[in-house]
This record gives sequence, C-alpha cells and structure tokens, in this order.
Amino acid sequence: MTPYEELERHFERLSQLSDITGMLHWDMEAMMPAGGAEARAAQLATLKVMAHEILTDPSLGDLLEAPSDGLDPWQAANLREMRWRWTHATAVDSDLIAALSKASSNCEMIWRQAKQENDFACVLAPAEELLSLVRRVAEAKGEKLGCAPYDALIDQWEPQSRAQAIDPVFDDLAAFLPAFLGEVLEHQGSRPAPLPLAGPFPEKVQRALCAELMKTIGFDFEHGRLDVSHHPFCGGVPEDVRITTRYTDEDFMPALMAVAHETGHALYDQGLPRKWRHQPVGQARGMSVHESQSLLIEMQACRSREFIEFAAPLLREAFDGKGKAWEADNIYRLCIRVRPGLIRVDADEVTYPAHVILRYRLEKAIIGGDLALKDLPGAWNDGMKELLGLAPPNDGEGCLQDIHWYAGVWGYFPTYTLGAMAAAQLFDAAESADPDIRARLAQGDFTKLIDWLRANVHFKGSLLSTRELMAAATGRPLDPEVFKQHLKHRYLS
Amino acid sequence: MTPYEELERHFERLSQLSDITGMLHWDMEAMMPAGGAEARAAQLATLKVMAHEILTDPSLGDLLEAPSDGLDPWQAANLREMRWRWTHATAVDSDLIAALSKASSNCEMIWRQAKQENDFACVLAPAEELLSLVRRVAEAKGEKLGCAPYDALIDQWEPQSRAQAIDPVFDDLAAFLPAFLGEVLEHQGSRPAPLPLAGPFPEKVQRALCAELMKTIGFDFEHGRLDVSHHPFCGGVPEDVRITTRYTDEDFMPALMAVAHETGHALYDQGLPRKWRHQPVGQARGMSVHESQSLLIEMQACRSREFIEFAAPLLREAFDGKGKAWEADNIYRLCIRVRPGLIRVDADEVTYPAHVILRYRLEKAIIGGDLALKDLPGAWNDGMKELLGLAPPNDGEGCLQDIHWYAGVWGYFPTYTLGAMAAAQLFDAAESADPDIRARLAQGDFTKLIDWLRANVHFKGSLLSTRELMAAATGRPLDPEVFKQHLKHRYLS
Repeated sequence: MTPYEELERHFERLSQLSDITGMLHWDMEAMMPAGGAEARAAQLATLKVMAHEILTDPSLGDLLEAPSDGLDPWQAANLREMRWRWTHATAVDSDLIAALSKASSNCEMIWRQAKQENDFACVLAPAEELLSLVRRVAEAKGEKLGCAPYDALIDQWEPQSRAQAIDPVFDDLAAFLPAFLGEVLEHQGSRPAPLPLAGPFPEKVQRALCAELMKTIGFDFEHGRLDVSHHPFCGGVPEDVRITTRYTDEDFMPALMAVAHETGHALYDQGLPRKWRHQPVGQARGMSVHESQSLLIEMQACRSREFIEFAAPLLREAFDGKGKAWEADNIYRLCIRVRPGLIRVDADEVTYPAHVILRYRLEKAIIGGDLALKDLPGAWNDGMKELLGLAPPNDGEGCLQDIHWYAGVWGYFPTYTLGAMAAAQLFDAAESADPDIRARLAQGDFTKLIDWLRANVHFKGSLLSTRELMAAATGRPLDPEVFKQHLKHRYLS
Repeated sequence: MTPYEELERHFERLSQLSDITGMLHWDMEAMMPAGGAEARAAQLATLKVMAHEILTDPSLGDLLEAPSDGLDPWQAANLREMRWRWTHATAVDSDLIAALSKASSNCEMIWRQAKQENDFACVLAPAEELLSLVRRVAEAKGEKLGCAPYDALIDQWEPQSRAQAIDPVFDDLAAFLPAFLGEVLEHQGSRPAPLPLAGPFPEKVQRALCAELMKTIGFDFEHGRLDVSHHPFCGGVPEDVRITTRYTDEDFMPALMAVAHETGHALYDQGLPRKWRHQPVGQARGMSVHESQSLLIEMQACRSREFIEFAAPLLREAFDGKGKAWEADNIYRLCIRVRPGLIRVDADEVTYPAHVILRYRLEKAIIGGDLALKDLPGAWNDGMKELLGLAPPNDGEGCLQDIHWYAGVWGYFPTYTLGAMAAAQLFDAAESADPDIRARLAQGDFTKLIDWLRANVHFKGSLLSTRELMAAATGRPLDPEVFKQHLKHRYLS
C-alpha cells in the first residue's frame, strides 16, 4: 500500500465516524427523550475522541509528509484536504480542546439563563473565560496556518477564507444597504400591505405540503426523512438525509420555507461525488457553499415570483383558501415582505446581511483585541443603530440573541452572507447558462436547475477552493454586485 | 493505574461503541428509509471492527493476565466477564469472522426467497457453506472454553450454559407436553369458544393504549420511546430505551402483548446497576434471563386473570366495546387460548416450548454431526409430528420459517424456553416473598413486582452466573416443575 492509499484508509474510517455522529445528532434533536441526553453526550464524546486519536496519531503525520507523486487531480486535492484537517486537529493540544469543550458547555448553560433574563453581566465571566480559550485556539491555529487568529477561526468553517477578502465585500454591502432599505420600504409602502392568510393551519396538512415541496424540488424519500425539531436542520448522511422543520398552526410559511432551505442543503449532500464519498475531497466545500445551496433553493427559487405562481393553487387547495389573500400576487408579496427587526433568525432577505455584518465586525474586533467583551452590549447597539436604525430594548434581543459566541463558535457568522451572495451569483449563472430554468419553476420543475447545480457545484465536492469553484461556475469570484442586482430587481420592481 | 483500572477504561469504550450500535440498530428498524441500508451497514461494520480491534489488541490479553489481587466481588465478577468476552473474541481469527459475516448475508438473502417459494433445495448450498463456517467457529471456541462445539455456540448467548444441563430439563418438558396439551384442549373444548372482539381497532387508539400499558408497568417515557417496526423489539440504551411494536387494525392484542413483552426487556435494562453501567458486570446476565424478564411481564403478569380484570374496562372504554365479548372473563380466555400451530412466533404459551425443543434437538444434532443439513426437512417434520402432532404442508411453514440458522445464529433457540421457565419460577418466588404481588395486578399496580425484580434480578447485572442468580432469587436452580405447575394452574383450572 502506498502512503496515500494508507491515508485513504484512515480517512475512510474518519468519515464513517462522522456519519455515525451525524445520525446520533439527528436523533438527539428529533427523537431522543430528554432523559437520554447524558448518555448521548457520552456517545458523541467517545466518537469525537476516537476521531481525534486517529487524526492526531503521529503515524498519520508521517504519511502526510511522505512523497506523493503520480496522484491525479482528485487525489491531489484529497491529500490537500487531508492535510487541512490534520493541521486543524494537531494545532491544538488535547488539554486545550478539553478545556474549551468544558468552558463551552458551562457558558452555554449560563447564556440560556442570561438571555431569558436579559442579563449580560451574569454571562460575562464565563464568556470571558471561554473567549480566552478560543483566542488560544485561534493563535495556535493561526501560527500553523500562517494567518491572523481571527482568520484561523474563519478557516475552520470556510477553508482559505480570510478577513482581508471579506472586508471589502461586506463594506460594499454595508454601504449599500441602509439607503437601499429606505428605498425598499418606501416602494413597499406605496402599495397596500399584503393581506394576511387566515389560519389555523393544521400540522398534518402542513406536513403533507412540506413533503410535496421536497419531492417537487427533487428530494428522494427513499434516501431520507422529514421530521420535527426545535430548530430546523439538515442532518444524517448523503444516502439517508434527515431534514427537520417545525410547525405553528398560525402560519404555514415558516415550516414550508424552512423545508425549502433544508432541502437545498440536502440536495447538495445527496449530489456530492459518490466515488469520493468517504474521502475529504468528496465532502461539501465549506459552510458558505453549503449555505449558498440552501439559500439558492429557498430565496432564489422558492420565493421567486415564478414558483409562487406554481405553488399558490396548491396552497389554496390544501388549506381550502379563498379570496384575494390566496392569489399568487398576494402570497408572493407575503413571501418577500421586508420588515427590519432586531432578531437575525427572523430577518428577511434584505436586512439579514446587516445582522451578519454587525456580528462579523464585532467578533473580528473582539478576537483582534480591539473590543473588550464587557463593551459588547454598547458596541452591538451602536452597530444596530448604524446598520438598521434600530435600538434593542434589552440584550436578550441584542447581543445575547445568538448561541454562537456563548458556545465557543467564533468566525462562523460571515458564512451566512457569503452564502447568500454566492446563491444569487450561482442562480444568475445558471439562468445565463439556461434561460429556461426560471420559467420552469413556474411549472414546479426544478430539474434543469438541479442539473446545473449538480454539474457545477455538487459533483465538485471539495476538488476546488470556494474561490475556484465560484470562478469555474460563474466566470468570476464572489461579486457583491450580483447580489445587489438581485435585491434591486426583486424589491424595487 | 492498575491493570484492572486500565481494563475498565478499555471496556468503558467498548460499552460506548455497543450503545452507539444499539441506537443505530433501532434507527435502522424503526426509522431508516430503505435507501439508507448500505450506508448503515457500513457504519455498523465500522463499529464492529473497531470494537473487535480493542478487544483483540494483544495489550488487552496482557492486562487480563496481570495479577488482580484485592478486587471486591463486583470487580472480580467484572474481570471474569471481561475474560469471557475476550475469550470469545480471540478464539476466532478475523478472516473467519469476515467469511462468516459474508456467508451469513448471502445465505439470509437466499433464505428469504427460499422461504417464500417453499424451496429448501435452493438454500441448501449456501446454508451448508454457512454451517461449515459456524462449525469452525464452534470448534475454535469450544477448544478455548473447554466444551463441545454446540456448547460453545450456546455459550455466546447464555454464558456457562451447556447441553448436558439443558437436556434433562427439555426432555422432562418434552415428555410432559403432548399429554398435557391433550388435556388442555379437552378442557378448553368443554366450554364454548371465547367470543371474538369485533374491530376494526384504529392504530391511534391502540398506540395510546400501548403507551398507557407501558406506564402502568413502570416504563419511564423520559427515558425511552415507543415506535413501530416490522418485528417488535427492545433496543437503545438503558437511559433511553427504544421499544417497538406493530399494529394491525383487525386485532389489538398482538400489539399490546408485544408491548408488554418488550417492556419487560426494557425494565431489565433500565434496572441494571448504574454504578457498573459501562462495565461487563453491569450488563444483562444473558439471553435466557433477558427473556425471563419479558415473559414474566407478558405471560405471568399481563396475561394473568388479575391483570385482565384491571385491563378489561380500559379496553372497553378505548374501543367502545359492548356486550359479553368485552367482559373480563371472555378477554382472559382469548388471552390464554391454546391453538397448536406450525409457526413458532404465533405460538401460545403451552405449545411454544415444543417449537423450541424441536429446534434445540435439531441444531444440536446438526452441529454434533448426527444430522445432515440435507435431511433437515424430514427430521423437522418428524419432530413436529411427535411434539405437536402436526404435519407442515411445506418447508416455508416448516424448517424454513425462522431466520436464525440461515443468518448464522445457532445455539440461540434454547434461551426462549429457558427464559419461559425462569419467568415462571421467578414469578412464583416473588409471589411467595410477597403474596400481595398478584392481587396488586388487579389494580394495575406493578410496583411491588418490579421492586422484587429490581432487587433480585435487575440490580444484580452479571454479578452472578444465571444458575447462581436463579438459586439466589428462588432458592433453587431452574426447575421445570414450577413451569409445569404454572401451566397446569392456568390451563386446566
């Protein structure tokens, strides 16, 4: 066996452990009774430790340094991805990882209470402690990767992405958004508000609609399921994708659009190159590309005027809807209604980037040492004022609203908006390649769109960097102009 | 760390891998879409190989041979159980295990077709191949354990159990059953047949009743679930027990009694000693004790006259049942109706042992070389005639009906009837210790029964051998007389 072949064997096992973790995680969110939590945590910890042992075994380092001539491009990319995983895993010693894990659990627990009671002060000390560990990780990884500590944190979710490249893109958007939002609100206000759809909407009917939507988009129920969890997500493994959503009988749109979003993630997973299924190069490219696939299906396709024309009669039939409120035009206007608010997860397509840019700037400043954690609430509120013109009445609706930082997840936020921009750019490229794609959505036909995504995104796995992938698929690197054009077209016309 | 402490660390990890396997297995049966099968098989295989690697690592053998002075009785029993696992794992080399696994899958696949088409000839060759591998395993394990090959197969499921001890017990029963069955049928025939309960019985109502029954018996839904699968089973882990059943709208009794049965298994798992949760000594004693717990709850408790008195009004209310058919007496008579038949899994309490004894005798003869596999159909039919007076019209309802042999599972069958006898004996001892136990069942109160089982069976884990456990709990080793008394009392009075 060559060193490369030996590496493939080790990474095949790591992939199996990761698949198993994915299944147990899905079960934890969708099925597990509360009393199973402790046992499940122990199972997941065992899998994590075993994977870490494989990845940090000295023999793996030797294999990664062995000569590797004669590899084909996929094998060479696979070796690059293996090295990337190994670099992240070996940059930090296991004591620090254990301390981080413990501090994360502790801080997250206190954060839940702090959020409920709008009490930032009570989470400050554990958050400071967690942050100091995150900084140590960032510094250790930065040193190994040859980049700044904050870049090293981003790199965990979005390999090779650096603040230097993100800054101009986000600055561009941040400069554009406030004035644009004003125009959108003015344009929106010039017409009567869309009519509300009167419920209640039975969960059973919503569920059937969600499954129908998944099938329409291209989800294969022979290879996956739809269930319920507190937060919608897409989990499982490519051959057995587990999507979740949640229902409220007051409105069916949240469940339906969550399903559209997660189905975008699912199709990416299902479309990854099977030949490389259990190798790093066969995995999804990174979090921004993953998010681009969910947002492309949800925002670009399912909230398009064309698709709503297709969906409106089905919605009317399912809920026995009658009158003007149930006409496609009204439903479309409900789907793209812009309402600036304090909460990121409730934000519309136009204001969402402002939430992300705020967090990106703040976490960069904190990791870089330019902002003290104790000053976060003030800085948060200043930023909200500047970007959205809103003043949070308390920290629960302000800097305590997201779990990420308090669970030790730093450097993740930018991927949401990088994904939204990539989604617009990929959809634009798909339309240019095949002008029929958008028209087909009006017939509930996603096949041409999915075919294009399969060929240009899914099948590529991690062969290319995100930058190379975007360039190959759309002819240029990520370009905020395309996203801005999309917003102008949808919200000002 | 002492060698013993190091051993505990290794076995803790093995326990976690076993827990993970349990969860994935439950999911496979209760949740997984068909298209996930191949990926799941790979996940389970990975866990199996990793566990096998830990168990057969030469360092583990050294630790097991190291001096182990000063252990307390639980630790000493734990070491004994560790050695037992190690002995089974190291007796067979990994090539043979891989060949066995492949031959099992192949034979099982062909068996499915053979069963459907009543064509024993078509499965003979793959079954011969599989059998020759099973024999090699049996011989290798027998050599290491110092017992006969067939004993070594039994030992996999029921440690320390040997044919020499089973033979007289089964011979006693086999001599008793035919005449007894005649008496039972005569006694049963002397009264009008019980009235059938008229359905349909909606699944939703059945499910609610099943959950209610589980709660009544003592199942904690904070630590478990009830779902549906093709074959009812009890899986998951002690903190998160996953029970399944299946429903048919023509009859509610099969689903309900399957749930009673699986809840017996579940309570055993939930009651195992927590202090030893992830050590071999903390696990269930063996398959016959496990089956004794399910049969005790199903056969001894839930099919008792007393419990049916409690359940009948609840059944009437749930299904809006009216008239004589829904009276406790009629429902009880339906619950204990004896009907000799060809199929083991449909058999009643009286005829079930005959099915098991037949299989036990046949598999012992086959492994021992006294019966050729090609002669199985004839020997089967002769045995059915002798034990139950029935002649299978084809092999699908004869020697092809059970999956066990064709999936490589030999030596397992005796545990069913050893469990049934142990159940009768344990229930009898519980009643002697607390005469109120049976009366309480008429009020739907299982607490005293469960308390006794907790103290005398569940909390013991694998501290004692099955023989010691029975002696400690009931004052004597397994004694077929108690089971026979139970049958006489229930079916002739």
